Amino acid sequence: MTEVRIIGGALPNIPWEEKPEGHVKPLWRHSSNPVIKRNPAKDIARIFNSAVAPYEGRYIGVFRTETDTTRPHLRLGHSQDGLDWKIEESPIQFQDEAGNPYQPRYAYDPRLVKVEDTYYIIWCTDFYGAAIGVAKTQDFKTFTALENPFLPFNRNGVLFPRKINGNFVMLSRPSDSGHTPFGDVFLSESPDFVYWGKHRHVMSKGGEGWWQNVKIGGGPAPIETSEGWLMFYHGVTGTCNGFVYSMGAVILDLEEPSKVKYRSRNFVLTPEEWYEERGFVPNVVFPCATLQDADTGRIAIYYGAADTYVGVAYTTVQDIVQYVKDTHEEVADDAGIGRL
Amino acid sequence: MTEVRIIGGALPNIPWEEKPEGHVKPLWRHSSNPVIKRNPAKDIARIFNSAVAPYEGRYIGVFRTETDTTRPHLRLGHSQDGLDWKIEESPIQFQDEAGNPYQPRYAYDPRLVKVEDTYYIIWCTDFYGAAIGVAKTQDFKTFTALENPFLPFNRNGVLFPRKINGNFVMLSRPSDSGHTPFGDVFLSESPDFVYWGKHRHVMSKGGEGWWQNVKIGGGPAPIETSEGWLMFYHGVTGTCNGFVYSMGAVILDLEEPSKVKYRSRNFVLTPEEWYEERGFVPNVVFPCATLQDADTGRIAIYYGAADTYVGVAYTTVQDIVQYVKDTHEEVADDAGIGRL
Repeated sequence: MTEVRIIGGALPNIPWEEKPEGHVKPLWRHSSNPVIKRNPAKDIARIFNSAVAPYEGRYIGVFRTETDTTRPHLRLGHSQDGLDWKIEESPIQFQDEAGNPYQPRYAYDPRLVKVEDTYYIIWCTDFYGAAIGVAKTQDFKTFTALENPFLPFNRNGVLFPRKINGNFVMLSRPSDSGHTPFGDVFLSESPDFVYWGKHRHVMSKGGEGWWQNVKIGGGPAPIETSEGWLMFYHGVTGTCNGFVYSMGAVILDLEEPSKVKYRSRNFVLTPEEWYEERGFVPNVVFPCATLQDADTGRIAIYYGAADTYVGVAYTTVQDIVQYVKDTHEEVADDAGIGRL
Repeated sequence: MTEVRIIGGALPNIPWEEKPEGHVKPLWRHSSNPVIKRNPAKDIARIFNSAVAPYEGRYIGVFRTETDTTRPHLRLGHSQDGLDWKIEESPIQFQDEAGNPYQPRYAYDPRLVKVEDTYYIIWCTDFYGAAIGVAKTQDFKTFTALENPFLPFNRNGVLFPRKINGNFVMLSRPSDSGHTPFGDVFLSESPDFVYWGKHRHVMSKGGEGWWQNVKIGGGPAPIETSEGWLMFYHGVTGTCNGFVYSMGAVILDLEEPSKVKYRSRNFVLTPEEWYEERGFVPNVVFPCATLQDADTGRIAIYYGAADTYVGVAYTTVQDIVQYVKDTHEEVADDAGIGRL
């Protein structure tokens, strides 16, 4: 294979551990996972499914935080090294576009994506049911909630880190009003972050294996590489004792990201460790963010574990892209049938 | 009450029958309903849930047509008087925006709405599940399918008959992938019919009565009146033997149509006649279109009956607006909680 490159900036202080000797899987876990444990700060019971980004030479994060009330909200956190996190004492305070205070009734599974000079937070919000909420900030002091991009019911809104053909591009996973037992990934475009359209189906649950046969959903913002958009996502299977969430990987076409180029038939991470198998929701790995260093090809993946912990896993762009290509399967519904 | 007026054009040849002597309900049925019966033409088993509009001094309709295959598609029909219909022998042939032939895999429950000089067809289409499909025509010869306005799953897309504050406005009813057991009416705006946003919740299932306690959905295009947008809609209740679909009426604010002004606590029509109680889906009245005459205030409502027939009912703007105001109830969720 020709050399695969990350298209993007250098991040020399990316959290990193070398692949363990003899490791044969495409991802390897941080050796002292989970990096955020139970009761990580006063009044916080659990932090998981959270997003991080480089900011001013250090790291900032938007965290899914649950207090002892077990209602999720979002808090900021700060870290020098991306592993040791200090969580703020209060929830993020949003305002609406007129400058009036605005708080979502609940907020969970945030993503944090920088496009041009603005950071966007995308989360699951209450809009007469689960829907995609969005807000923007440039300084992590003022957070302006924007128009909901889509009607309910929807989850797992994921923004691409740059405009494509002049438009913002967002993935989402249309859902129902409960613990949705189905779901594919779609893509939508917007010229202005107010009005969205040109909706396309991207990829389906299913395939040969069972790990993603109930539903799938976007994860971290896709990573631009010389082979296409590398996207980690979650895939869900059902058992007699509930859902099991694994992590998958796919490569989308750079200019037409609703087209799947390569899609691994295998999960790339599945619950194995105690912090993934045990917790509020057992058997969940749920990726929400990555950091990457274009100079070395290193990728650090942040994932929620068992709806209780934050874990970190590592790979390189060379390793994961090769793995996805080697284990590629075509899934019929990914071909764009019924475009309109 | 001050005189209520329809804001719009005259339609002197509107189908019409006077209110029967002693009739106490807000709507009355056409005396020779159903106006379209079973097996109305060669190879057509049933026509129902269809939309009509005045066109060049006569009437034109877009019909939900089912052949003996029981897969719905759309056909044009023509009528001099709005009651006696001649249905075309072939389905409507769509093209995409590049001019290539395009047929939805299925199409049902069309609405037909003229905005400015263009007629828009809105229907339930297959987009990896039920979603809103749209097409436009100016001559009823060329039909151009446009971008799907919303992600799945959605049904009952209803366009307002004029732009409001410069934007197209569409109602819809977010759904799930099956026989949805929930559902409220939302509203979305578009500057260009490509990108949609500023989504608002309009009205909820529920209220004091039971007839609309499972789900509700938009019906005909709202009628502009001096009291607000008069909208007929369907409300659904559940029984041990399945859903029952009735017709309701609501008045929305003219300039902010996501705001409910008056909402009748009562159905205004419910299955009573044999053609409403018996058929492929028993116990359904499902309004999809109206004709109205601003000079007289007369309104003719077209509704599907038992997913088998087309029925017509009549009222006047004075009668129905007075009835909705007299039987108004406030429903808490209609107040716009959680706007963003």
